[in-house]
Formats: sequence, structure tokens, C-alpha cells
Amino acid sequence: MSIVNIDVTLRDGGYRNGFNFPLDYALRHAGLSVEAGFDWVEIAYRNGSLLPIANLGLTGRGEDEFISAVAREVGPERVAMILHPKNITEHDLPAMYAAGARLVRIILPSTGYQLGLEYIRQAKEIGYTVGVNFARISQWSGRGIVEVATAATDAGAEFVYLADSNGSLSPVDTTDLTTLTKSVTGGPVGLHAHNNLGLALSNAISAVAAGATWMDSSIQGMGKGPGNLIAEQWLAHLDRTDAEASTHLHLGHALELAELLLATVPEGTPSLPLPDLVLGRYDLPVEHRKDVVGGSHHEGIATARTLTTVR
Amino acid sequence: MSIVNIDVTLRDGGYRNGFNFPLDYALRHAGLSVEAGFDWVEIAYRNGSLLPIANLGLTGRGEDEFISAVAREVGPERVAMILHPKNITEHDLPAMYAAGARLVRIILPSTGYQLGLEYIRQAKEIGYTVGVNFARISQWSGRGIVEVATAATDAGAEFVYLADSNGSLSPVDTTDLTTLTKSVTGGPVGLHAHNNLGLALSNAISAVAAGATWMDSSIQGMGKGPGNLIAEQWLAHLDRTDAEASTHLHLGHALELAELLLATVPEGTPSLPLPDLVLGRYDLPVEHRKDVVGGSHHEGIATARTLTTVR
Repeated sequence: MSIVNIDVTLRDGGYRNGFNFPLDYALRHAGLSVEAGFDWVEIAYRNGSLLPIANLGLTGRGEDEFISAVAREVGPERVAMILHPKNITEHDLPAMYAAGARLVRIILPSTGYQLGLEYIRQAKEIGYTVGVNFARISQWSGRGIVEVATAATDAGAEFVYLADSNGSLSPVDTTDLTTLTKSVTGGPVGLHAHNNLGLALSNAISAVAAGATWMDSSIQGMGKGPGNLIAEQWLAHLDRTDAEASTHLHLGHALELAELLLATVPEGTPSLPLPDLVLGRYDLPVEHRKDVVGGSHHEGIATARTLTTVR
Repeated sequence: MSIVNIDVTLRDGGYRNGFNFPLDYALRHAGLSVEAGFDWVEIAYRNGSLLPIANLGLTGRGEDEFISAVAREVGPERVAMILHPKNITEHDLPAMYAAGARLVRIILPSTGYQLGLEYIRQAKEIGYTVGVNFARISQWSGRGIVEVATAATDAGAEFVYLADSNGSLSPVDTTDLTTLTKSVTGGPVGLHAHNNLGLALSNAISAVAAGATWMDSSIQGMGKGPGNLIAEQWLAHLDRTDAEASTHLHLGHALELAELLLATVPEGTPSLPLPDLVLGRYDLPVEHRKDVVGGSHHEGIATARTLTTVR
């Protein structure tokens, strides 16, 4: 097996610090990430994440100057971007490519994804490696996955990522979703795991066993809520179980990068917020976090149950 | 499937705070633990852990008065103790039982376990539920496991725990060891997981899939190094995947207990020390922690490699 690893720290970690990574940290991060053996460093959203955020930082804006600076540091063939179709115009993909991005992930909703398909076609024509992300995959129907994965692949998407945005997938769920997606696209499948239930690593192992070949992870797990698959743990797992991976992974650099993150970015410190575990248990998205905090945990769980039932 | 859950926070968590839990915390902990649905609360070592520790606290000494106090709080049928045979005399097991302990785990080394067998027989005669723990299972040979598991079962041990003290087992390793042990004893097998590589939950799931029916976990994972299987995550997993378990598990109480631990015991805060990840990657016991810290991570990894090679 040969896994393509994307480091999503600068992008998904941005939910913790308003995307306000200092530029010199971001550049050092990208350099060490490549030295650790990541195939791609996903450095930013283009023009914001799903919902508007005040004082959006460097890695939430994803401007050309930032892309150029990272490309000068690590070379364009390591620079990945992600975007929501609604946030860009026809001018963005060419500009990002000219600045030095070579991989783009386009986030597709389960309905109203036509605009995204147009950008897949444009990205392919420009010369990007192009993939799609299905966010909140736990709330997609099997038929929805089949429909959008097929349409995206036909439009030119080279891989399909399943994003467990609610952090609610079990290893069995992950196996099933990977198998389904791979079956209908015939192409590579990736997993973007969240750690609400502590299952990110378990789900990553299950996804790869089911045939997934792309994997997102972040240093110290820095990402929304309780974070993503923890890169150091994932690389250690590959390093000892995957003979091919162990030839180009360098755990020492990943640990150095973890030290640098912890020393530079206070929001990078891992934590395990209990309300996010409740959200994961009841497969609720982050908008409902406000509903499960504030009272006792018993009240939070009762509310989560109700919200799950009425959905 | 029906899993027997042991809460080991007060015992294994003691490695973080010199076993110095305040008595009133320990009593409230035990009460909430039972309310959360734990079958047993392992409250202490009897007369110390493997190596002597200065100023050994309440849950490292495991004296009769403490056992009695907990038994008054939650009833004897929830009170578990653990011990190293070398630390006790023939007077300890009767005294512990009289004080209110009803389950005892006897830690057996891979060689020189005869004394432990005598205590198994004595514990059975007294009326305990009695099991054995094999510490540092990653360093036992398959034949060693067969020999000691057979001898312990013949002496009266009702279950055998595999303790991944180095935190180095993979899910596949865990499956194999569970299968081996179950095959030769014909009785229940348990797992005591550590989280050096972030695999505690994944290993727990694999162990149960292979037939394990006893599981250790601790609140917020509080335990040696990067800690144990995180109880809140484990209970959440059982709660949604095991119809039988979900009838008597109460995640809300577990989350309340987590809040109480974090508010009362600063050392209970989860952390992910990078040197412990290196120890897990190279299957080294905690005595070698001093060898992999101090220099750079590259030096630590190089040293760990050397130590693994020469073993």
C-alpha cells in the first residue's frame, strides 16, 4: 500500500486560532512537514471557510502572496489548497495556480453541487491535481454519495475525500463508506477524520484496510473541536506497519514540528472537550455545540438525544 | 457481548500524582464511577507498585482503612484491588477481604511466578473474584503466555489480563494475543491498554472483536505516561455499539466524573508527551524514558532504535 498524506494543520487547525498563524511559523511548518514526509501541505482555504468569520487570518484567506511564499519554501509540488465553490470566482483557480498551488480540493455539498463540478473541470484544464471533499459524510445518504461521487469523477476529480466533520463515524461505518465510494468511482478514496470519539486513528486504519489511499492528519491533531487524526500517531503507525511508507517518513521531523507548534501556537495544545464527545456520540454538527454546553452533562446529553431524534 | 469494565483511574492514574488522591475525592470518584456503569472500581495497589516510590500516596498503599471507606461508599461488590506478589504476605489477602475488597488482580511476571500462584489459590479460598495481569505483554513470548496463563488458570484464576505496559501493541498484535490467550485458558481475557501510540481505543475494539470480555479504562485516560484507554470514549463506544451495555452505562455520569477529576486533580489533565510516543514506537519500557529525552527528537529516536536492536 502507498498512502498519500496531506498535512491539514495550517488549514483545519485554523478553526482554533481564527486562522491567524504567523507567516514565518507557516513557512517553517510547511518546510518541516515536507521533511517529515508529507506529500502535500494544505496551507489554507481560499477566501474563507463555509461560514464567514470575523478577522479571518492568513490561512483562512489563502491569498496569492501566501501561496507564493510557501511555494518558494517547499516547491509548488507540495502546495495544496481547499475551497468552497461559493467563495470563489473563475479568476481564483488560475491565480492560485500561478502563485504556486498544485493540488486543489473542492468541497461539494450533497445538493447543489453543479457549480463545484464546473470548478473541477476548470482546475483540471489548468493542470491541478484535483479532488473533492464531502463534508459531514455521516449525514449523507448512500445514494447521495453515489450520485455526487460519480458526477465529480466524471467531471475530472481524481480522488474523493470522505470528511467525518461530526467526528461520529465508527470504524465499521468508515469501512462501509470507503467501500461504497471506491466501488462507484474506481478511483482513490481519502479520509478526513475527527477525534470527537477518539476514533480518528481507528477509523484511519479501517479506511486503509478497506482500500483508502489518501489520508488527512494534523500535527498534535490541531483542528476543529477535539481535532483531526493526530499526524505523529498516524506517521508512527505507517512507519512500523508499511514498509514502503517507512522509507520516506521521518518521525523525528514530525516530533520537531510538534514542539515548534506547541511553542509558537498556544491553540495547538491538544485538548479533549467533553461537549464535543457528546456531539460525536449523537452525530451532531458543531452548530449544536451551544445546545449541549451550559447546563450539566446530563442535560447536554438529553438535548443531544432530542436533536438527534427530530432530525 | 457483555463487557466487564474496570475503572483503573485511582490506581494507574496514581503514577501521575504519586498516588496522592485526597480521600474524599477517591470516595466521590468511586461513587460516580459506579453510577456511570463500571462493574468494578480498582482503588489501589496493595503495599506499592513494582518499584518503591517515595511518599507513596493513598492509592499506592491500599490500606485496610481505605478499602473499608470505599466499600462503605459503593458496596464491597464493586471494590477491586491489584498487587504484586512480592509486596504482600499471607496476611494481606484475608485483611483486604475483611475490609471489603471482593476482586483482586495478581500481577504475574513471565518467570518466577510460583509465589503468585500460591496467592491465587489463597484468594480463591477466601472467596475473591480473582484474576491475573501479565504486565509488559509485548515482551512476552507466545510460549511464555501459554505457560503462565495455563498455570494461573489451573491455580484458579478466573480471567487473564494482557497489559500493554509499553503502549506498543498494534490492533493486529492485540487480536493475536487475545486469540492465543483465550485459546489456551478457555476463560475470559481482558485488555489493559496504554495510549503511547494513540491506539488504546483501536486495540480495545480489536480485543473485543477477538473475544476479550474484560476491559480497563480510566477517566480522561489518567494513567502512566500518556495514559490508559480513555473511559469516556470507551463507554461512548459501547453505549452506541453494544445494545446490552447501553442499558446500564450512563455517559453523563462519566462526563461528570471527568469534570470532577479535572477540577480536583491537576495531574488528571490529558497530555500527549512526545517521548512516550517514541517509547511506544520502539516497544521500550518506561525506564528508558530518560534515554530518549534531553536531546533532540532525532537523537531520541536514534537511541530508541539502538536500544530496541540490542534487546
